[in-house]
Amino acid sequence: MKHTEQLNGLSSAASEIRALAAGLSAGQASSIDLVEECLDRIKDPAGEGARTFIKVWDREARLAAAAFTPERIGETRSLVAGLPVSVKDLFDVKGEVTLAGAPARDDTAPAASDAPVISRLKSAGAVLIGRTNMTQFAYSAVGLNPHFGTPGNPWDRSRTPGGSSSGAAVSVADRMAVASIGSDTVGSIRVPAAFCGVVGFKPTQRRVPRDGAIPLSTTLDTVGPLARSVEDCALVFGVIAGEEVRPTDGFDLTSLRFAIPKGRMLEGLDPEVASAFARACSTASRAGARILEIDVPTLDVFQTLSPNATIQAVESMAWHRDLIGRRGAEYDPNVRARIEAGDRIAATAYADCLMRREPLSHELDHLTAGFDALIMPTVPIIAPSIATCMRDEGSVRARIIRNTSPFNYFDRPSISIPIHEPGSAPVGLMLVGQRDEDWKLLAIARALETGRGR
Amino acid sequence: MKHTEQLNGLSSAASEIRALAAGLSAGQASSIDLVEECLDRIKDPAGEGARTFIKVWDREARLAAAAFTPERIGETRSLVAGLPVSVKDLFDVKGEVTLAGAPARDDTAPAASDAPVISRLKSAGAVLIGRTNMTQFAYSAVGLNPHFGTPGNPWDRSRTPGGSSSGAAVSVADRMAVASIGSDTVGSIRVPAAFCGVVGFKPTQRRVPRDGAIPLSTTLDTVGPLARSVEDCALVFGVIAGEEVRPTDGFDLTSLRFAIPKGRMLEGLDPEVASAFARACSTASRAGARILEIDVPTLDVFQTLSPNATIQAVESMAWHRDLIGRRGAEYDPNVRARIEAGDRIAATAYADCLMRREPLSHELDHLTAGFDALIMPTVPIIAPSIATCMRDEGSVRARIIRNTSPFNYFDRPSISIPIHEPGSAPVGLMLVGQRDEDWKLLAIARALETGRGR
Repeated sequence: MKHTEQLNGLSSAASEIRALAAGLSAGQASSIDLVEECLDRIKDPAGEGARTFIKVWDREARLAAAAFTPERIGETRSLVAGLPVSVKDLFDVKGEVTLAGAPARDDTAPAASDAPVISRLKSAGAVLIGRTNMTQFAYSAVGLNPHFGTPGNPWDRSRTPGGSSSGAAVSVADRMAVASIGSDTVGSIRVPAAFCGVVGFKPTQRRVPRDGAIPLSTTLDTVGPLARSVEDCALVFGVIAGEEVRPTDGFDLTSLRFAIPKGRMLEGLDPEVASAFARACSTASRAGARILEIDVPTLDVFQTLSPNATIQAVESMAWHRDLIGRRGAEYDPNVRARIEAGDRIAATAYADCLMRREPLSHELDHLTAGFDALIMPTVPIIAPSIATCMRDEGSVRARIIRNTSPFNYFDRPSISIPIHEPGSAPVGLMLVGQRDEDWKLLAIARALETGRGR
Repeated sequence: MKHTEQLNGLSSAASEIRALAAGLSAGQASSIDLVEECLDRIKDPAGEGARTFIKVWDREARLAAAAFTPERIGETRSLVAGLPVSVKDLFDVKGEVTLAGAPARDDTAPAASDAPVISRLKSAGAVLIGRTNMTQFAYSAVGLNPHFGTPGNPWDRSRTPGGSSSGAAVSVADRMAVASIGSDTVGSIRVPAAFCGVVGFKPTQRRVPRDGAIPLSTTLDTVGPLARSVEDCALVFGVIAGEEVRPTDGFDLTSLRFAIPKGRMLEGLDPEVASAFARACSTASRAGARILEIDVPTLDVFQTLSPNATIQAVESMAWHRDLIGRRGAEYDPNVRARIEAGDRIAATAYADCLMRREPLSHELDHLTAGFDALIMPTVPIIAPSIATCMRDEGSVRARIIRNTSPFNYFDRPSISIPIHEPGSAPVGLMLVGQRDEDWKLLAIARALETGRGR
């Protein structure tokens, strides 16, 4: 049995996207068949499609797929040509109103043009299949949406899929798309990826353009992919970053040094998370990886300063003031309260958070320079029930973003890969790389995912 | 008579730095002679040295100069080797306390290392001659310093030299140094350059490192040179930016298109400023430059939003809180009041100023894309008397930064060159280039300075 299957039971040794693309090019499969399969799953009344998608582009997807003959796919020289990809309801698509999961946006003018992420996917031949559901305005990693509903977790439908890219993660896990585009401000790609058992990659911020996406926090927002394997994430990341895809098979575990930050990041773990993380570490160790626990006092400073709460509240309030004035009653009340907290913050407190970012980042760089990546559980707990989340959204939220949030502030590329046993509660392991070393982090994550070592 | 002499009576057709460096290399002059001349002027009791310098490095400068034999200068292959350069009292020099013109800093620990700007100057062989006086913490372009005194304007000693790089401009105009390093947050290089009849260059922010300089506003602070000609500024800019010096003789006026922003920027000009600016424009026109007056509504939006006042107050208060708590009574009261205003600003107001920066910058880029540079008077008035400034510091300040301030917010390289008749009140003409086109702007400014045309 392959190590990768032991790890997550989902990713295949060959990238699913590469395999699909090869099949399409060879005429062994057709884009239209793939798209129909995804549409069938989306429309299955027993499935989660109705809560996973805010809009399904069935007609456009069928038209686009029909154009993807094997010859045409060969010509595009793109691995995503003809493949169905979903996008979070955050991105402008020409002619459509961008709701960001919120009916309060329904009187907004349709987008005048595609967001760069959308136009890059289209140019690469991806078949865009629909807009995925999300926490309103992306302002919670819990994943509830009182208006469009909350898609059930693929492992246990009574549980939350996590958010804010809730529909993105479910669309990938439930095979309604081969990959999805999400956004991550304090964990909104990595948390749902961990809860749903898929891979979620938050790149270094500047690598993927954020234009044409509704901002939550201009300082922290980052755009990235979710998919079923690290390599699939890498292929989609290349497209949306406008970068040439680099090979992700450059490392094996024997050459890698990982650091686990001691203390806070390991506190309060659910037993399922603790045992899956311990098992993943010991498997990697046996394969030759060196794993050390280290003190990272910068992360304690981060938890005390709690800059992301301040930054998000202030920046979102500055953006939302007019819309709350007009349509505040239609907001998710939890989201609205979180935004309006921004009006009670002094400018100097916000400036402190911004000004300490660079020196603290330098300090973290220094402390972690001797390691190829930091590793830790993506989320300390397994996905809670939707009922629990509805009862106590605020405290669930604080727990589930604890480990992901620092790496938006420090602008480090960070990826969550599944490490649970097949059939059990999904658990994610998060790897954190050095800023701008996105391709290196993907290759390291792939080495861990495949267990390649001695 | 050369046009350049008509323009300002100061800069020479050949760069003074090139001429000095050639003399040093050829052994026709010695670094020690140059340094002694500067030290004599600094120490002349009839001169402004005592108020221009906070500290004179006479011993260190003599030692450094003595080492600069013609052979050694030849080896350095640097045009600033052996030349006396002054630096604003804002930059860390290893082993010294950085006061930023403020006695409230006198119990601070000595700097552990040189600021990068200082170490780059030293590596290039510049002889650092002293720390120049400044407005406390750089927080006013008027140029007063109640503790260290205010150096008299080289044209009329009863008038202010402008600030905050007051000593920097006077040290260059009075030949106590061949060039000086200043900082510019809303005009602190360009205003004193205009008032003292020298050239002052505010680069694109990221080109010159700000580490090891006491911040006023992390968003707006920019480091740059003052000197007696555009080419001299270019040579020093190359050193402190760590960039290869590019030729500045690539343009003549016949190929250039200038735009004058209509409206606010031309209001309330002193007669001396209006006539010098009109004469400079008509001389440039006759030499073949095309000059158009255009509407730039973005600049009106800037004046209404007034973002720099908010940004400076908030960011400085965040930095000064502890020091004001301990030693606030020793601050210049005007400066302290300006800083403390930051505590009465809401975070969302500050965030608005930051968030509108990029879209407004794009708008300005679009409106000015068809021109090689914007031109306007650097300051609408000539240097006021020190007595007037002391009576009404606030309203003088608002007038003198009106034209310079927007181009820190829009992060455009901007340079002030002297355009007055010899012996009359100094007047500066400001050129504003496209972001990151610093070398192009220097070359355009040199074409205007030398009047090279048909």
